[in-house]
This record gives sequence, C-alpha cells and structure tokens, in this order.
Amino acid sequence: MNFNLNFNNIAESYLFAEVDSRVAKYSAEHPDKQVLKLGIGDVTLPLAPEVIKALHSAVDEMSKKETFKGYGPYKGYEFLRKSISGYYKRLGVSLELDEIFVSDGAKSDLGNILDIFSEKNVVLVPDPVYPVYVDTNLMAGRKVIYSEATEANGFLPMPDYGVDCDIIYICSPNNPTGAAYDKAGLKKWVDYALAKNAVILYDAAYESFIEDNTLARSVYEVEGAEKCAIEFCSFSKTAGFTGTRCGYTVIPRAIEKEGVNANRTWFRRQATKFNGVPYIVQKGAAAVFTEQGQKQINENLAYYKANAKLIAECMDQLGIWYTGGKNSPYIWLKCPKGMGSWEFFDYLLENAQVVGTPGAGFGKNGEGYFRLTAFGSREVTEEAVKRIKKILSK
Amino acid sequence: MNFNLNFNNIAESYLFAEVDSRVAKYSAEHPDKQVLKLGIGDVTLPLAPEVIKALHSAVDEMSKKETFKGYGPYKGYEFLRKSISGYYKRLGVSLELDEIFVSDGAKSDLGNILDIFSEKNVVLVPDPVYPVYVDTNLMAGRKVIYSEATEANGFLPMPDYGVDCDIIYICSPNNPTGAAYDKAGLKKWVDYALAKNAVILYDAAYESFIEDNTLARSVYEVEGAEKCAIEFCSFSKTAGFTGTRCGYTVIPRAIEKEGVNANRTWFRRQATKFNGVPYIVQKGAAAVFTEQGQKQINENLAYYKANAKLIAECMDQLGIWYTGGKNSPYIWLKCPKGMGSWEFFDYLLENAQVVGTPGAGFGKNGEGYFRLTAFGSREVTEEAVKRIKKILSK
Repeated sequence: MNFNLNFNNIAESYLFAEVDSRVAKYSAEHPDKQVLKLGIGDVTLPLAPEVIKALHSAVDEMSKKETFKGYGPYKGYEFLRKSISGYYKRLGVSLELDEIFVSDGAKSDLGNILDIFSEKNVVLVPDPVYPVYVDTNLMAGRKVIYSEATEANGFLPMPDYGVDCDIIYICSPNNPTGAAYDKAGLKKWVDYALAKNAVILYDAAYESFIEDNTLARSVYEVEGAEKCAIEFCSFSKTAGFTGTRCGYTVIPRAIEKEGVNANRTWFRRQATKFNGVPYIVQKGAAAVFTEQGQKQINENLAYYKANAKLIAECMDQLGIWYTGGKNSPYIWLKCPKGMGSWEFFDYLLENAQVVGTPGAGFGKNGEGYFRLTAFGSREVTEEAVKRIKKILSK
Repeated sequence: MNFNLNFNNIAESYLFAEVDSRVAKYSAEHPDKQVLKLGIGDVTLPLAPEVIKALHSAVDEMSKKETFKGYGPYKGYEFLRKSISGYYKRLGVSLELDEIFVSDGAKSDLGNILDIFSEKNVVLVPDPVYPVYVDTNLMAGRKVIYSEATEANGFLPMPDYGVDCDIIYICSPNNPTGAAYDKAGLKKWVDYALAKNAVILYDAAYESFIEDNTLARSVYEVEGAEKCAIEFCSFSKTAGFTGTRCGYTVIPRAIEKEGVNANRTWFRRQATKFNGVPYIVQKGAAAVFTEQGQKQINENLAYYKANAKLIAECMDQLGIWYTGGKNSPYIWLKCPKGMGSWEFFDYLLENAQVVGTPGAGFGKNGEGYFRLTAFGSREVTEEAVKRIKKILSK
C-alpha cells in the first residue's frame, strides 16, 4: 500500500492554532484583562423557533413505525428541493428539482465535487482565499494558479484572458475579504469561463448577507452561468446551521462536454459515496423557507448585519480602508500605520484586548490586512469597537 | 475543463431498477395479488425511545443561546467517541479516543478513505460484493482484482499469497452473502495484509447481528490488525439510523508507511473536506450506548434476528443450501432446481408473489444465488416463508 503523497504538498495551517496560542499566553500573563473575540467565523445565535419546531416534529416521526424514515433519496427529499427551488424564484432564477442536490454543507460538496473532474485540470483561485479550495485540489494533485486580489481591485480580481484554466473558484461575498461581485463583474467571469471552456465553482455561502440589489445573490442571475457554473450554498450562516449541517449544490443540466454530463456524473458520485442528509435535518432546513421561518431568520441576520455595520462605521471614522462590512459578515481592513498582519494582531491584543484574524493566514496578498467578524454578541462587538476607536483615534 | 473519464468504467447498476420494474409489471397485471417484499436492505422499526429522548433534548439545546452548538470537532464530539471506545472494550479492544472518527455513515467513509491512498494501489475485492467498493475505486482509476467467493469456500474466500495487492476489502458479516469470518479466518487475512504491506478496509456494518462468539465483531479482536486494518461501522443497521446518518471509522495510530501516518492523514482529509455530523444526531447516537439504549436496540435486533431465523429454518426444511441467516440479516441461498438468479426471481414472484434480490447483481459469482433479508415485518416474513415452503416443497 502507498499513501497519496500529494498530501505532502499541503501547507500545515497554523493560523487558528497560532491565534489561540497567542491569546492563551496573553490571558495567562494578564488574568485581569477581558479579551474580546472578533475572530470567530461561527454563528452564535440559536436556531430559529420554526426550525426547532420542525426538528421536534421530525424526531416524533422517527419514533413511530408508520412515519419512520429509512434511507432517503440521494439528492435529498423533494419537499426540501421544492423549497430551495422556490427560494431561487425570488431572484428570477428557475431551477429544475433534479438540478438541486441537498448536502451536509457547502464545504463537503466544494471538496467532493472535484471527484467528477480530471486531475489534469488547472485550477484558478483568488489570493487571499478560504484555504480549502487550494488544499482539496493539491490533495488530488491538481495545479493551482492564483488571481491577485488586492487593494487596487477592491479584492475583486477580474479575469485575464491571457491565463488559461479549467476550474475557477469564486466566493462572493468573499471569505475572508467580505468583497462581493456585482452582476456586471460576475458576467465577466461567466463570459471568460465560457470562452475558456472552464467551469465556475461558485461559493454562495454568504449570499443571505447581501442587501444591495446590484450584487449577485446567485451566479444564475447572470446570463450564461447555467452553462458553466455550479453553485454551492449552505444553511450554516443563513440559518445558524454550522452545527446542524445542511447545504445544497446546484448543477444545471446544461453543463456537459463530449457527452459527459456534470449533473448525471455528480448524481452517480453521490449515489456511490454518500447516503443523504438526516431526514430530521432536512425537515429543519425546509422550515427556514416558510413565511414564519424567513421572518425569524431575517431577524437573526439583521442582528449580525448590525454588528458588521458597527465595525464598518468604526473603520470609517478612523479612516481605515476596508472591504466588506456591508453585504457580508466580514470586515477586511488594511492594518493601520503600515503594520503587518501579525504585528497588528499583537498590537490589538495588547492594547485593546481584541482578537481578530491575521490576513496573512489566507494567502500572500492577505499580508498587511486583518479580518474582523460580525458573529459575536452585540455587547462584545460594541465594547470591541469602543476599544479600537480609543487606541486608534489620533 | 475535462471530466474524470474514469466514471465511464463504472457499470450502470440496473439491479434494483430492474427488480422494481418487474414487480411493477407483475402487480399491474395481477392487481388482486399481494406482493411480499423480502428484498429490502433498509430497516423498518422506528428509533429506540432512548434515542428519541436524546434527539429531543439536543433539539432543545439548539434552541437556546446558552446551549446552542455551532461547528463541532471534525472527529466528532468526545462524549460520543468515549461511548464508542467503551463499546469496543466489551470485546477486549482498547482504542484511544483520537483513533475514532465519527462519520455520517460507513458508506461515506468507505468511499472517502480512498483519498488518502495512492491511485496506483491495486485493490482486492471479494466477488460477489456490495457494489460501492468496486465503483469508488474505478472512479479514481484504480485497478480492481477479485477474490472468488463461492459455495466451495462458503462465500468466505481466503488469501492467496500468489496474489499481490495494496488495499483489501472485507465485509463481515457480508452483504450480500451473510457469511461471517471467524477469528481464525480473519487472522489469516491480517497475516496476509501484514506480509504484503497492504491495508484492510474492514466493513463491520452488520457486526451487531453476530451472536456466535467464535466470529469476529471487530477486526481488532485479531492480533496484528491494529497495524494494518481500518474499521468502518455504522448505526444504520445496529440502531435503525439509515435515515438519521451516523457511523464511525477507526484508524489505529500504528498504521504508517515511510513516515506517513494514516490517522493523521485522514484527519487532514476530514478537516479539509468535512465539517462533522450534526450535534443532534451525535447526541442520539450516544444514547444507543446507554444501558437503557442497549436494551432497546437489542430488542429491535432480536426482532430482525427472529425474522432471519424463520427464513433460515425454511431453507433448512426445504434442503436449500445457504449462507447467513444466523449472525446476519441476510440469507444467501442457492437457487433451487439449478435456476439462474433472475429465473428464480421470476419464479418466486409469479408463484409466491415474494420479491428478493437476484445474486447476479452483486458479481459474477452471485449468478445462481438469491438474497432474502430479515428487515421486513414479522407478518410479511411469516407469510413469505409459508408461500415459499408451499411452492418448493416436494
């Protein structure tokens, strides 16, 4: 037996371990200081009452022979796929039910989808980026190239026709930069993908944070995307499902090449390597799309959005350049006074006892930048903003 | 972009579609006849009351900010891994908590584990077999060779030192044949794997049906297995979790080669391509291991085991050769009167209105054999047995 030695090409990620270690050291040396964490990428509000009600009711169904559910459909139950399809209709996007696959989260499918593509494909990933796009491809031995996301392009790189590639990752609103493509910008990527015969893997995990109608909530709002783009979405950030695990992947029927169809090939992959999402969880996810569910979900989202606004306004007042803050739970700021990412991390920890995430951990273009998130409580966010203002005001 | 053309090497599976189609045709032509299904591989009894209680309680935790759970540990919550480790102790098997990975089912991990192995590895699979072992490897471009499971070896093939391979699949008790290795037989496979530097992927999904103490419930009951075997297990058949989705994979720390460690590599794979099993489901799974939970689970298992016994006794009375029936929910019988698998399928459907699964669908050595399962209700099983006896008695 031999191991897959491509794993040796993946960089060990010390980012969050190093953050934790520096915070632990500081706290041990300053037991009297209250450390505020704005580095967290996880939700903190509980599941919505409608979701809880649906979960309880589904558990009850599992307790009786007459309503017990065994193996479910590989693609997910039709009641949930119908709800998802209805959710897309509000954007003017019409999906067939068999174009929707219920998953246990966007992360799983973003990695697993690569099974259906050749290992010889060249992959284009923005830098900085959510590290799993790169790692899942390096594991499989694929060549990864980068598009440069920088202050100059507002961390929204545009296609370069001089570059050839097969698989294009787009995350919008972006993690970690919070930057989101408008429909015109996304159209350029779709046109490029069609010209290059490439496929776009579109990570829409943060779509529910978008309020500006010129921005795309789905790649399918852009003409031509149905021929080249696969969209991944999740209930994690939309409805607080990070610990409940449900998402969905859209693969239009029209994506095919030389007689091979992406939708059918993915179905074959899923039927062979996956057995569906728990019935209970699918019932909970469907409750997100009811009238009452949407109302409750939007209240939770409004809470996080207000946190993001507080942080963004703080940066505005301090004259600090940033992306995100609006249409995103992330604020990606340029470290003041020319500090490096880790230098600013230490500065903020020591002087304001506020913890964020050094941008350098997301790629070389992240150096000199810093990520704050809106997923903390209102109290913590308000206090953190107050402290940041105090130390950074002239 | 190019697709992974290895998918073209996977045979389309028409087995269950063909079964359904023949049954539908028969029922349409004979609306007055009651068709009894003993082909089902899914459980039919509801979740145990202790599991239901734990699920409700976990849903309540998700409804309050103080007890809400976001992202969980990639390996699964410690409370569940501790329970699993305790479950192994009854067999005299001692596992470290970090050797246990909670999964969303044995099927997912049996496919995904291949990510950590080289694509050049040669895979040894018994014929007949659960089709996903073969398909997941063909997808990745691996060479698959077969060990012959036949009447002569009781459908329990033994290693042939003249054959070289890297990855060995063992499913015991087996799906579809119901045959289970005793510890002595399994020891021969472990010795062979160690001699060949191969890894055993041991599918123990049906271990809870074993009652005979000479048979292995875990591969780790055999000395040396901790250096060469990965074990996959599931709550699906043990506790009726086919629609609730939870399993576990054991990767001993000792499996390594040239500095690469299987446990650490799998952890890296999971951290990159998986985000854990729902907290709610993990709480439900942990309830299976409580005293009350074990008692309830064993009552359900006893129900299925009694069904299996009814079918096995029927075969004994008819003088039909079979494997399984004891220590397994499957009865794998030799079609009487020299009939082929599909010929017997039609014969049974037309003359007794009983539906089973033609063995030919599981590999070439399955031709001439037929699978019946114990997962139906008692009433259906009793009536089916009565009808089979009637048409096959001399």
